[in-house]
Amino acid sequence: MNTAEIISIGDELLIGQTINTNASWLGQEFAKIGIKVKHVTTISDDAAEIKSAIDTAFDRNDIIVMTGGLGPTKDDITKHVLTAYFNSELIVDEAVLKAVTDFFEKRNRPMLEVNTLQASVPAVCTVLPNKNGTAPGMWFDHKGKVLISMAGVPYEMKAIFTDYALPKIKELYAVNSLVQRTVLTQGIGESFLANQMADWEDRLRADGLELAYLPSPGMVKLRLTSFKGETDIPLIEDYIAELLHRIPKNVFGFENDTLPDVIGHLFKQNKLSLGTVESCTGGAIAAAITSVSGASEYYPGSLLTYTEELKCNLAGVSSETIKEFGVVSSEVVTQMAEGGKKQLGVDWCIAVSGIAGPTGGTETCPVGTIWIAIAGTDRTVTKCFQFGDNRERNIQMSVLSALNYLRCELLGLVE
Amino acid sequence: MNTAEIISIGDELLIGQTINTNASWLGQEFAKIGIKVKHVTTISDDAAEIKSAIDTAFDRNDIIVMTGGLGPTKDDITKHVLTAYFNSELIVDEAVLKAVTDFFEKRNRPMLEVNTLQASVPAVCTVLPNKNGTAPGMWFDHKGKVLISMAGVPYEMKAIFTDYALPKIKELYAVNSLVQRTVLTQGIGESFLANQMADWEDRLRADGLELAYLPSPGMVKLRLTSFKGETDIPLIEDYIAELLHRIPKNVFGFENDTLPDVIGHLFKQNKLSLGTVESCTGGAIAAAITSVSGASEYYPGSLLTYTEELKCNLAGVSSETIKEFGVVSSEVVTQMAEGGKKQLGVDWCIAVSGIAGPTGGTETCPVGTIWIAIAGTDRTVTKCFQFGDNRERNIQMSVLSALNYLRCELLGLVE
Repeated sequence: MNTAEIISIGDELLIGQTINTNASWLGQEFAKIGIKVKHVTTISDDAAEIKSAIDTAFDRNDIIVMTGGLGPTKDDITKHVLTAYFNSELIVDEAVLKAVTDFFEKRNRPMLEVNTLQASVPAVCTVLPNKNGTAPGMWFDHKGKVLISMAGVPYEMKAIFTDYALPKIKELYAVNSLVQRTVLTQGIGESFLANQMADWEDRLRADGLELAYLPSPGMVKLRLTSFKGETDIPLIEDYIAELLHRIPKNVFGFENDTLPDVIGHLFKQNKLSLGTVESCTGGAIAAAITSVSGASEYYPGSLLTYTEELKCNLAGVSSETIKEFGVVSSEVVTQMAEGGKKQLGVDWCIAVSGIAGPTGGTETCPVGTIWIAIAGTDRTVTKCFQFGDNRERNIQMSVLSALNYLRCELLGLVE
Repeated sequence: MNTAEIISIGDELLIGQTINTNASWLGQEFAKIGIKVKHVTTISDDAAEIKSAIDTAFDRNDIIVMTGGLGPTKDDITKHVLTAYFNSELIVDEAVLKAVTDFFEKRNRPMLEVNTLQASVPAVCTVLPNKNGTAPGMWFDHKGKVLISMAGVPYEMKAIFTDYALPKIKELYAVNSLVQRTVLTQGIGESFLANQMADWEDRLRADGLELAYLPSPGMVKLRLTSFKGETDIPLIEDYIAELLHRIPKNVFGFENDTLPDVIGHLFKQNKLSLGTVESCTGGAIAAAITSVSGASEYYPGSLLTYTEELKCNLAGVSSETIKEFGVVSSEVVTQMAEGGKKQLGVDWCIAVSGIAGPTGGTETCPVGTIWIAIAGTDRTVTKCFQFGDNRERNIQMSVLSALNYLRCELLGLVE
């Protein structure tokens, strides 16, 4: 399998002023054609560092992609380093000069001396045109390997790579047919999942598939990979079907699905409407649901009732119930969800009440205790969740748990 | 100057499924104490790769920070590689075992065999406790240099680094006397700001200070840096005072302030209460306000009225007003804000109505048009904002604009 290395150049990356999104985008692009990015190396705009990084990269990988250090300002030295590295000289490329001149004319901006310099490229390189900027991409063949240098501005880099570099890479290398599927799970921890599916994982690996656990708060993504290509698709589908059969409450989607997307799809499909009555989540469930364009078709609105007073006045919770059971209780979230259904005029309603923290916990109801209710067409179900101490994370976990609990109840998966 | 290298471990980073935000966060933290991150190296969960990366890093830098590869599943091998690298052996650390046990008990989750393994650490390391997870951080002293290994989950890593690694680093290394202040602005673009403050920036640079513009959607952070140390603090304060004087509507805070923090502080200080009536922002303003712990003291709740029906029924908007002026209008947001004040029983109320997009725009009211109203004790003010085509960004910009508009009106800065 051919391998690649990404060399990202720029002090702004090292001091954390800019997040290296270029490297992850390139990693995805290479993965799609079955070329493995084995190293990402970030260094400063320093000639010795750049030279040394190129040496190392040529030693261990087939394709080097460099981004950054090609701007018109003084601290961008990549082009000069490359010219020296490949024992070449800078020449003016007439096509690039015309492109740069056109670029400024089109924008009615004066062209400066420094901009003209961008039309100089090492004589040995093949120019990869940059339609979104002035610094051209450069392709170098070197002892059977390849080095590609591109501007660091993401939308310039992406266009150069997609339009000019990628087709040449596909011509040169036997790009294989790596096949990947990602299964999204909610409500089950990484280790718990690994334990419960241990036999499945063993068989999957014995069949030559790879499995990766990609956890994030409240979610674990399972990535199944085959390097054999499309012939393995039925095998992968079988393993996914088994997963769905064994943990249906947890598997909520695939690939780039999000829970709000999945919920939106279900409500649109079934021509149902949804409302929410939130407390400790503070509007975060509403914000998640409405992150989907077109949410207004099934989601007319919501109530945020932080105080007991608003729980009673807006959502119709009885103050006696609060007195008897406490505001974080199955009884109160039931009344919130059922009251919300009426008040918002919806078919289904989620209600949440809990202690997001970091303060407000008690002995019997510690920080991280969250009650969730789902009022549906026929019944209302409730469930208590226990998360941790971190406010932001508790809110995030509550949002995902509430949406997945709604999904399960809607699909008849809740007892 | 001491230098550092970050080694990020994980296939998910190489194939671009996860963006390496840990490296940029660590880069920022090191920059703050004057230690330069010279290299960021990303590699896969592979023993030979990890060993080789450590060798290279020890050759060229003083401090190595490794993140990732410490989870309980089979593909996480970092701990074993480190144990071998430092010729040590794994021993059970009783304090870690207790912490892991407590972690599961507190969450009412059963502890598995694989979780117990997380309490094993190389005998030669100093444990850096992980209060947010089960994999402890590890500190290794090696020939006058240091290697720190931490979990890759950002909020676990950040807590370990801040609470345990950073204090030890500060003890060991002559961290220099770099002084930085960050000023937070809202509602003014980077180039506009640079243009308006050009004379200020020139003087500031002539005085030997550095200035960086750090833009993010709806906000620009200005970072002022002196490498001379504390003697420059009065100078920096003078420049900040001038900024505050010249663009008071835009400067909303400093350092790690957020607009919800600033708003919360103002409302608590003035013993006032706040409500919100949202439409196109879909609960995102409420979620922002309640991201602050203790928001319930001044924020009893909110209404999300996506549909016209709920705008009328819940917030008391007149359907005639909607017919006459349209639902995205100064008149409607005024009624939403004033109706919200009554319905929620609050002193101040924000209301927002607009077209978040990507669909729903018209010729007279294109996508990105957002009306915001602030109803206060004495009057209601409204303002129309025009953002772009991107739904997520429009929502984000609306949240920041609404909160800053509220801040300005509360402080008497709106004409």
